[in-house]
Amino acid sequence: MTLQKLALVACAAVVGISFTAPAMADADGEIKYRKSVMKSVGGHVGAIVTILKSQTGNTANLAAHTQGLVALSGIAGSIFPEGSDFGETEALPAVWEKPAKFAKAVKMFQDAATNLNTTVRSGDMAATGAAFGELGKSCKNCHENFREKKK
Amino acid sequence: MTLQKLALVACAAVVGISFTAPAMADADGEIKYRKSVMKSVGGHVGAIVTILKSQTGNTANLAAHTQGLVALSGIAGSIFPEGSDFGETEALPAVWEKPAKFAKAVKMFQDAATNLNTTVRSGDMAATGAAFGELGKSCKNCHENFREKKK
Repeated sequence: MTLQKLALVACAAVVGISFTAPAMADADGEIKYRKSVMKSVGGHVGAIVTILKSQTGNTANLAAHTQGLVALSGIAGSIFPEGSDFGETEALPAVWEKPAKFAKAVKMFQDAATNLNTTVRSGDMAATGAAFGELGKSCKNCHENFREKKK
Repeated sequence: MTLQKLALVACAAVVGISFTAPAMADADGEIKYRKSVMKSVGGHVGAIVTILKSQTGNTANLAAHTQGLVALSGIAGSIFPEGSDFGETEALPAVWEKPAKFAKAVKMFQDAATNLNTTVRSGDMAATGAAFGELGKSCKNCHENFREKKK
């Protein structure tokens, strides 16, 4: 909790009123939330990789993972609220400084996930491989432009 | 790849036949797949925790995460194929030695996820907290009985 929020809480207590929490909670919480969402994305992507490489016999689960990615891509735009750029985050200021470019990158992810999910359901494995390649490009596009380089 | 599988591949090459891969790929691949699925589960659970603790303003995403858990719990039973108990895994032999007990533990997870998802959609936040507590118990139940103790 920031000092400002603490002060608000204290004031509310003193004057006996309640108030609604702001849209963004504290930056640390938002960053924790964002990392959890990306962890779930990473889990699905890793699962899809093992399926496409035939490292698992669980081919039947492929659509569950691509569906999961569609849902997660749908909320990806919401996990970078204004002000959540301070703290233990690798998100670059560009996320907030270039909102149009960032929105485009998120849409690229969403479109790629939707296309991958549709393709998987068609049963065409060659097309699925290509659609997964496109998804990978959308990950890379966002990570290269909006995330700190890995050390 | 196990020696047995290598021998099969070698035989197939020598006699010029092809053969279909078994339902289980190699244990390492299955373990990698399992860890990816559990990573995605962990991501959703972490996201739900931050939402319920009001650490993020993204309350509207709650149902996406509980829906994601329902889908993942639905495939949880499939990620422990026979033979995937050797290698870099923390899964205990009990998974395969006590299949009825394990199936019951998986069902407990599935039921808890489904109930949580339904409760979230009802909008009752107190009941949601309780339903999330039940989900936590189902995680703990499986991890205590079927996973190596964390060192």
